[in-house]
Amino acid sequence: MNLLNEIAERYPAAISFAAGRPTEEHFDFADLSRYLGLYRDYLVRDKGYSDAQVNRELMQYGRTKGVINDLVARNLLVDEGITADPESIVVTVGCQEAMVLVLRALRAGPQDVVLAVAPTYVGLTGAARLLDMPVLPVRDGAGGIDLDDLLAQVRGARAAGLRPRALYLVPEFANPSGVSLDVPTRRRLLEIASAEDFLVLEDNPYGLFHRRGERPPTLKALDTDRRVVYLGSFAKTAVPGARVGYVVADQPVGSGVLADELGKLKSMLTVNTSPIAQAVVGGKLLEHGCSLVAANVREAAIYRRNMDLMLAGLGRFSDVTWTAPDGGFFVVLTVDFRVDDALLEHSAARYGVVWTPMHHFYGGTGGFNQLRLSCSAVTGAEISQGLDRLAALVTDVRRGV
Amino acid sequence: MNLLNEIAERYPAAISFAAGRPTEEHFDFADLSRYLGLYRDYLVRDKGYSDAQVNRELMQYGRTKGVINDLVARNLLVDEGITADPESIVVTVGCQEAMVLVLRALRAGPQDVVLAVAPTYVGLTGAARLLDMPVLPVRDGAGGIDLDDLLAQVRGARAAGLRPRALYLVPEFANPSGVSLDVPTRRRLLEIASAEDFLVLEDNPYGLFHRRGERPPTLKALDTDRRVVYLGSFAKTAVPGARVGYVVADQPVGSGVLADELGKLKSMLTVNTSPIAQAVVGGKLLEHGCSLVAANVREAAIYRRNMDLMLAGLGRFSDVTWTAPDGGFFVVLTVDFRVDDALLEHSAARYGVVWTPMHHFYGGTGGFNQLRLSCSAVTGAEISQGLDRLAALVTDVRRGV
Repeated sequence: MNLLNEIAERYPAAISFAAGRPTEEHFDFADLSRYLGLYRDYLVRDKGYSDAQVNRELMQYGRTKGVINDLVARNLLVDEGITADPESIVVTVGCQEAMVLVLRALRAGPQDVVLAVAPTYVGLTGAARLLDMPVLPVRDGAGGIDLDDLLAQVRGARAAGLRPRALYLVPEFANPSGVSLDVPTRRRLLEIASAEDFLVLEDNPYGLFHRRGERPPTLKALDTDRRVVYLGSFAKTAVPGARVGYVVADQPVGSGVLADELGKLKSMLTVNTSPIAQAVVGGKLLEHGCSLVAANVREAAIYRRNMDLMLAGLGRFSDVTWTAPDGGFFVVLTVDFRVDDALLEHSAARYGVVWTPMHHFYGGTGGFNQLRLSCSAVTGAEISQGLDRLAALVTDVRRGV
Repeated sequence: MNLLNEIAERYPAAISFAAGRPTEEHFDFADLSRYLGLYRDYLVRDKGYSDAQVNRELMQYGRTKGVINDLVARNLLVDEGITADPESIVVTVGCQEAMVLVLRALRAGPQDVVLAVAPTYVGLTGAARLLDMPVLPVRDGAGGIDLDDLLAQVRGARAAGLRPRALYLVPEFANPSGVSLDVPTRRRLLEIASAEDFLVLEDNPYGLFHRRGERPPTLKALDTDRRVVYLGSFAKTAVPGARVGYVVADQPVGSGVLADELGKLKSMLTVNTSPIAQAVVGGKLLEHGCSLVAANVREAAIYRRNMDLMLAGLGRFSDVTWTAPDGGFFVVLTVDFRVDDALLEHSAARYGVVWTPMHHFYGGTGGFNQLRLSCSAVTGAEISQGLDRLAALVTDVRRGV
């Protein structure tokens, strides 16, 4: 996605529907020191730490698997009903490092492959590329995953001498498609994973941001067979600048769990996640009783409002279809002309609006008539004006201008 | 090194000469918020940032190559006389991530190998293992590197169909040997790297901590041919808990520099280094005019005192030899019996003193009569008592007790 960042940098005045960043509306520098103080108070009061122990915990090298694991476990229980042993959690440098660690642990040799619902988040394909691990696409279909295609891919891979180790997906408001899996599909997916003996890598950065309806259970909450490795991000729910994520990996390995193996790999990759950054996230968790639902009431309202405005605003387009997700950050438009990086550059330069060509999420093998619009980091006025600009682009492209 | 951490955890009362951690004597939690404030003031005054821009820089996703690159460049100029374009710097999650990124960039295929002066820092061998990249050892000899063996290894590797891409070393107070390269050896090494066309990966975490004498120029300061990739750590000189390091990679690649390629790889590994953690380091740099020599006057005095005490205290041993480095954290003892993990465990359990078996730094192929003592994170009293305990162990081992 370097090209996209570059285009965004070159046209700073363009309205951006490209970035999947969280809203900055409630960012406040003063929060950082307050979070650090809350975490210190917790260490002193709840854990009985001396000043020297507080200094050591925050400022010295820290435990490879993390220092806020107990708070992360409480968050998972409070918000998701997931019971996780803190020792099955590794706190990582964002969810991206978690993906690299998990793929590296699963990759014993060149025959090991990962499956991923396509279109696929580029972070996963990037992590796999870094490790020279093939990614086999699985069709998403209308329900977020085509389970028949999943079975066909798994069996086809085995027939070709490959070992499908895991399936990666974002079951709730997927990036980029915005689509969610219903509960029966979630259950059926877990049955298939058990029957066919592969892991499910559940990435859930947007699950808290529902526009309407109830939040369905995560795959991990439904997991009775330790099939699910849960990839957690605090980038959208706490502070992106902390770069703190985590992974729940409670699968038995030897006398321990997969998390222990991930910890060993992490010691060779980043040694440990900054305890200062962890303390910032820990302080925010403590401030809200370890509930990120509670911590994100204002932000969730912004995302709901923006998605409503975006979907209403799309009414001005004709001969264009779009998804209408129940939440999250992303809407996908399907148009009747080719959508590529050249069109994006043209859009940025001449129309002052940027977005993400969907072909990036298909490894360049599809999506050439689709584009992704993100509504997370824009104002209501920007949504309206940005859609006007996009409409002008669409009109002119059709006219051949 | 998981075993070593585990032993240290199981015997918390043991005096530790094992950990190469910086002293905690001057850690102060209150520093963290002050550093953040100093960095904010710098953004406002020197860069003209608004409050919203400050919030975005610290709390939003950040630039992949880093945000404090200009301060790092100033530090390199002030303390090392190195002129580095901030765009040739990538700020990383500790020096460990920098090593992974550089090795990954150099590893185009299975024929690419890295050379390393043996005994070798386990962070480098770990990074290479993570990437399935072979490490070829080069003898250190009395002067820190045996240049004849280096040439023999490079040419032998080529003859075997391998591509030696780089040599890794810690030229000043090496971990674990404590040995330093003199200036003529540094110059000769750079000539060989140019003539034989490989890079030099210079890791310099201890260079500021001289016990006596002048600081010699770094390899990077002597580098006129862009042969040196400089690996920087702030763990010993700023705040370990920030987990911030960096790499200077000014080698031309395409229309850019190697740092740009490392940035692309970093976007797949950790996306970006926490700007909050970078701001903590940035604030400490700003507080001391970007000089870490100035920032570490008290710490350098502790390390000098401790090394003096350690070397004086070793006088109680007979039939043991030890290195006497001019600075840094480490002394290596050579004894007349086998030194392995079982002896370490025995030492921890029965004598209350832990240290590091040197065989870990030889990939298990040597060093079985050597142990490393670190004097960085102990008090004077602990050094005295720890050496008494070690002397008792040595006596008992020789008696066959």
